[in-house]
Amino acid sequence: MSTLTAFRAATGRFLPRMVPHLHKTSSRCVIPISSVSCQHRLMTNGPNFIRVEKDDTHKGVSVIKMDNKPVNSLSTPVLMEMANALDKLESDSSCRGVILTSANPGIFSAGLDIFEMYQKSPDQTNHFWKCLQEVWLKLYGSSLVTIAAINGHSPAGGCLMAMSCDYRVMSSGKFTIGLNETLLGIVAPFWFSDTMLNTIGHRQTEKALQLGSLFKVDQALDIGLIDQVAEPDQIMEAAKTEMTKWLKIPDHARILTKQMLRGPTLEKLQTKRDEDVAFFTNFIQKEYIQKSLGMYLESLKKRQK
Amino acid sequence: MSTLTAFRAATGRFLPRMVPHLHKTSSRCVIPISSVSCQHRLMTNGPNFIRVEKDDTHKGVSVIKMDNKPVNSLSTPVLMEMANALDKLESDSSCRGVILTSANPGIFSAGLDIFEMYQKSPDQTNHFWKCLQEVWLKLYGSSLVTIAAINGHSPAGGCLMAMSCDYRVMSSGKFTIGLNETLLGIVAPFWFSDTMLNTIGHRQTEKALQLGSLFKVDQALDIGLIDQVAEPDQIMEAAKTEMTKWLKIPDHARILTKQMLRGPTLEKLQTKRDEDVAFFTNFIQKEYIQKSLGMYLESLKKRQK
Amino acid sequence: MSTLTAFRAATGRFLPRMVPHLHKTSSRCVIPISSVSCQHRLMTNGPNFIRVEKDDTHKGVSVIKMDNKPVNSLSTPVLMEMANALDKLESDSSCRGVILTSANPGIFSAGLDIFEMYQKSPDQTNHFWKCLQEVWLKLYGSSLVTIAAINGHSPAGGCLMAMSCDYRVMSSGKFTIGLNETLLGIVAPFWFSDTMLNTIGHRQTEKALQLGSLFKVDQALDIGLIDQVAEPDQIMEAAKTEMTKWLKIPDHARILTKQMLRGPTLEKLQTKRDEDVAFFTNFIQKEYIQKSLGMYLESLKKRQK
Repeated sequence: MSTLTAFRAATGRFLPRMVPHLHKTSSRCVIPISSVSCQHRLMTNGPNFIRVEKDDTHKGVSVIKMDNKPVNSLSTPVLMEMANALDKLESDSSCRGVILTSANPGIFSAGLDIFEMYQKSPDQTNHFWKCLQEVWLKLYGSSLVTIAAINGHSPAGGCLMAMSCDYRVMSSGKFTIGLNETLLGIVAPFWFSDTMLNTIGHRQTEKALQLGSLFKVDQALDIGLIDQVAEPDQIMEAAKTEMTKWLKIPDHARILTKQMLRGPTLEKLQTKRDEDVAFFTNFIQKEYIQKSLGMYLESLKKRQK
Repeated sequence: MSTLTAFRAATGRFLPRMVPHLHKTSSRCVIPISSVSCQHRLMTNGPNFIRVEKDDTHKGVSVIKMDNKPVNSLSTPVLMEMANALDKLESDSSCRGVILTSANPGIFSAGLDIFEMYQKSPDQTNHFWKCLQEVWLKLYGSSLVTIAAINGHSPAGGCLMAMSCDYRVMSSGKFTIGLNETLLGIVAPFWFSDTMLNTIGHRQTEKALQLGSLFKVDQALDIGLIDQVAEPDQIMEAAKTEMTKWLKIPDHARILTKQMLRGPTLEKLQTKRDEDVAFFTNFIQKEYIQKSLGMYLESLKKRQK
Repeated sequence: MSTLTAFRAATGRFLPRMVPHLHKTSSRCVIPISSVSCQHRLMTNGPNFIRVEKDDTHKGVSVIKMDNKPVNSLSTPVLMEMANALDKLESDSSCRGVILTSANPGIFSAGLDIFEMYQKSPDQTNHFWKCLQEVWLKLYGSSLVTIAAINGHSPAGGCLMAMSCDYRVMSSGKFTIGLNETLLGIVAPFWFSDTMLNTIGHRQTEKALQLGSLFKVDQALDIGLIDQVAEPDQIMEAAKTEMTKWLKIPDHARILTKQMLRGPTLEKLQTKRDEDVAFFTNFIQKEYIQKSLGMYLESLKKRQK
């Protein structure tokens, strides 16, 4: 048994299954994060919104490509496939790193699918939100090296996916990235906010989150929302070069370090999942929120004509 | 009933009355923050240290001008008037934003009035401190968009007022800003420190607070203590231009986001108000502190001659 | 009795003995931080790894020079001497500040002595770790002004010592500084991480700690890991000039402010000391960690040939 395999066996390998305090090693691998209601549907066959490919240059690295045309909206099925893909890679002992990107250059992801929040039953919005929590817990807490190759616009939930990785390379060009929820009259939940706080600090988050700021690539680099800019045709190359650096670090040491730094943020949602789902559904079902989502969808339709 | 009015009604609108965790919506509007001992004197007639004017360019925006010559010291009466003014604007449903500035360009505010701490009875220092807490809770937790137009020097309590706003524009010139309490041998309380931590981060706060640093305008911009610099004759214009950006955001989304980010810091003082008052009065009444305040006042007198 | 002496008497003067919340003044001076098992051996005579000299230009300032050739490894005896030296200065009422540097320019400190972790008994690694905790608690929580004159390489534990001071000047040249533990397959404990978080913020710490980054002098300055760069032959001069600034602040105000900002971080380890020792010993004794340390030591031997 290799050192790494031994370590993975000992810790359960998945960060979310580890307790946030390194010291309580005893309970590390006992608490599965997945809520049944999201997991049990993951077997559903359907279109491939999430494509997983082996990286041809790195042994042990996979590429996850989001492919939900036209703008990679994060609908419930997309989120379920994403959770599934992350699970498979996490439990694949030959996999050490993953690059998250879009199959549709120009757009990384437009974020949450508004149609999942508009005129839906509480059961539906509950389920949608659980799946989103699930994906974030798996991605932010992944034991793999996670690198976002942000090859296009990345607002709202798209920005969350990017921020949840270990490193962000973004294509140069007229793209933007940010949590712009307030512009639609909705509110990023505390764990979106926490993820941003851990990335760009309190003051920048206060401004960005209240104003719903969408940052241009250079601005995003300047405030640390992304780590690197690359020419659009070189973004995968840049992501792979960065991956090489991270793979030089022994996995067990990197994972324990990542857990130490991200554990408390993950645990905060873990202990409040039900509350958070209830809050979201209660909020999104309010008449004035539904009205404002309706108006937004109307404006999108007009734009497309 | 408009969306905003409905939202305000539902949440009680005042941030300090909301609980820090978004989820416990039930208790949002039940706990008034005001301590009786500060509030009951607010009706006192007296000179107008705090002038509230309507902004002529923005509907729904007011301007608060501090006017306590010569240096806008924050005495007990000034603080009471400020709390009163903030209360009125907060409960005025036509008001959405406020610009905080000085009626005496060259000095934003010199901070706490030393005479309120020197040779006073414990009752007097208790009352003074409660009023200061009150103003900070109302300003830092205001549901309005708050912009500081820092048109002059802004040491100590003046810096606190500025940092408690959502955005800071400062006049270019030979002005300084910072929490310089240690220079006088006194100590900024934890909530001054927390406000600074949320603005410039831990490391800068550690240095600035221990050294009692007063930053020049460019330095302040560089470390993020202010957000923007404007020519002295254009500072109100700059503040109004910035206000326009913030007013584009739906109030309910902006307020919930602000609450999420500032709630825990506000709640920390809320739960420790009495302790904090007792600590201040105990500290300030110490012989060696009184002696050092006396020496400082003596040096001020000499300077004025 | 001078103001300062009165203050020291009232507070017990030592930061670690103060409780983290300013308000509970009653219990400030009652809890000695030293664990018996580290302290009782401090009397041992032996070589002088830690030299304490008076600064010739500043009254009240001492210089601690680490001198454990060739690379100032932090072995158990070195740590015990360091704890002892810090204790003596802390209780010397004429001492107000200390400059920490190396007697061997070119290397500040190579960090923890690997031989203290390799093929040792649990008792030995327990003791070693307790001494390291002790030194950090005394240095990070020192009531003295602490300035690191980093006159050479400063990896791992060397970086921790530097980060625990109030201010860092580093020699220009081909030196590096950082917490590079993951490169050796080991993991910086939470309090190394916390110290770094308080210095360079969350995002930079996440990258630096996972990648085991060793920063060049200019990079370190850029991310705020050090505060200043000086020519190697002017580093002590630079440290002394900076010391002058800090000594202008009344000690009691500076100490209370430092306690407010560092108290919670110190208390976190204080309440988990035993857990932390047990975790370290359990981790370091693992077969695959021992193997990886063995390989590292082997590689060092080859390099020296």
